[in-house]
Amino acid sequence: MEKPYVLGVDVGGTNTVFGVVDARGNLVISSSIKTGAHNDLNDYIKDLTAGINQLIEQVGGKEKIKGIGVGAPNGNYYTGSIEFAPNLPWKQTKIPFAQMLTDSLGIPTTLTNDANAAAIGEMTYGAARGMKDFIVITLGTGVGSGIVVNGTLVYGHDGFAGELGHMIVRRNGRMCGCGRQGCLETYTSATGVARTAREYLDIRSDKSLLRNIQPDLITSKDVYDAAISGDGLAQEIFETTGAILGEAFADFVTFSSPEAIILFGGLTKAGDLLMNPIRHHMEKNVLNIYRGKTKLLFSQLKESDAAVLGASALGWEAK
Amino acid sequence: MEKPYVLGVDVGGTNTVFGVVDARGNLVISSSIKTGAHNDLNDYIKDLTAGINQLIEQVGGKEKIKGIGVGAPNGNYYTGSIEFAPNLPWKQTKIPFAQMLTDSLGIPTTLTNDANAAAIGEMTYGAARGMKDFIVITLGTGVGSGIVVNGTLVYGHDGFAGELGHMIVRRNGRMCGCGRQGCLETYTSATGVARTAREYLDIRSDKSLLRNIQPDLITSKDVYDAAISGDGLAQEIFETTGAILGEAFADFVTFSSPEAIILFGGLTKAGDLLMNPIRHHMEKNVLNIYRGKTKLLFSQLKESDAAVLGASALGWEAK
Repeated sequence: MEKPYVLGVDVGGTNTVFGVVDARGNLVISSSIKTGAHNDLNDYIKDLTAGINQLIEQVGGKEKIKGIGVGAPNGNYYTGSIEFAPNLPWKQTKIPFAQMLTDSLGIPTTLTNDANAAAIGEMTYGAARGMKDFIVITLGTGVGSGIVVNGTLVYGHDGFAGELGHMIVRRNGRMCGCGRQGCLETYTSATGVARTAREYLDIRSDKSLLRNIQPDLITSKDVYDAAISGDGLAQEIFETTGAILGEAFADFVTFSSPEAIILFGGLTKAGDLLMNPIRHHMEKNVLNIYRGKTKLLFSQLKESDAAVLGASALGWEAK
Repeated sequence: MEKPYVLGVDVGGTNTVFGVVDARGNLVISSSIKTGAHNDLNDYIKDLTAGINQLIEQVGGKEKIKGIGVGAPNGNYYTGSIEFAPNLPWKQTKIPFAQMLTDSLGIPTTLTNDANAAAIGEMTYGAARGMKDFIVITLGTGVGSGIVVNGTLVYGHDGFAGELGHMIVRRNGRMCGCGRQGCLETYTSATGVARTAREYLDIRSDKSLLRNIQPDLITSKDVYDAAISGDGLAQEIFETTGAILGEAFADFVTFSSPEAIILFGGLTKAGDLLMNPIRHHMEKNVLNIYRGKTKLLFSQLKESDAAVLGASALGWEAK
């Protein structure tokens, strides 16, 4: 009998969430452990294994699970390792994560980075069903991407392709955590939006609800709340953020001419406040042969489940 | 018996070159007709058919030819049409070129754009043999590109992917023939190099051999000759051109993490004058996870044959 379930694991800096998923993309059961509470990698793997085994028992045992898919920051599909992940608590520069789980659970495990997992999730269960060429852009603390060309993820020769958050959109622009300047994510992540807010408040003198908040505590959520309340400066911040994304998307289209660009992650809660300027500036900047062809969509995966769903989809690839 | 030959056709604005190629990539026999001398498309197809049939007879007849591959400006692999090609003499906005040749010659014909043809040529016969992820950049009158991911050409959902000459590298920069501003090709094509020379001569006062030439007659060849003779200003022009290419390549790597970027076309005659600054600025600007990984290579295909060889490689795909 065909095995009816896969298991998805989303490794985040704070929590590791994992769950059992059926072939229709229903998250049947899920659980989590604290990533940050485990300074020792072996302790973490032990606790994660125990947590996963509990779920597996509840759905009828190991023989029901086709495979495990893991989404992790800086996860490399080819090697199954997590490499140089700055937000995880372990010192090792190269963690053979997929192999460690395969060994401890006895189920074939495949790993990729979190944005690629999101793209696989959209293709398998979400907005990209039936599409062969699309790009998922994750707008959260950082900006990530998963690029699908001709029905397969673009991994590149080394497994690290698709870091569109680090396309340089402003030469000599904002300092980025990567050590370079002007990366897309310094302007258009949730953190980037808050940074724009602080810049605007500093160099301008117009009134704004955001002036009631201590500048270094401003979040993208505050900017959203202010914009929704009619705050002109906050609305301009989303306009600027959308313009930079739209210009960047026009260049992405020049590369792979996707059927759709799908937005995923916390910042997408801004809805039309963000989507309208993105659409306007993408169409304004795109080469004429592409104009009006690329759809802009929001993810159709439920935010809280999406990371696990996306990762789990990799489990179906298991032989 | 396996058919031993394919036939390649390179449609250029001035000449259309065509030839018979064997499985090792030898151009067995070739010929050409003047594209520009045919204002009527049907006359052109008739003359091209006659020219091709002559070659076919010389290699033993139609049954020796597996397929025909055509490289043409704005050629679309999916539709087999040439669409909106500004430098061809025919008024039709969409020419069903592959179908017309299939009909007139009775041999299956596949078409793509000229830069994609170059990429297929490199993969089949040239510097990219054995590579699954690479990018070919053509530096000629314009700048074109053919992107290979996971062993297949990136065509995108509409067949028009991979116009990297139209990535915007300078917001509000030079006017481009496409109607937008700051495209890579306005700076780094042969024409772009000549344009940089005119700008430098205009705004600067240092001596240069290039001042002996009437500004609007300066070509990239003149800049090369001057640079080789030790002319500092001409050398700076290549340094600047290479810097812009290197910065752009760093962004291309962020997208598809290719094993190599292969340079093709007239401007590559500049050799190290161009390659050294490209390498320096690509490595300086690339995200740390990619540093030192992507090879920079010159095409290994003989310039005069390359376009036909590249196009011909498509002929092997014929069923």
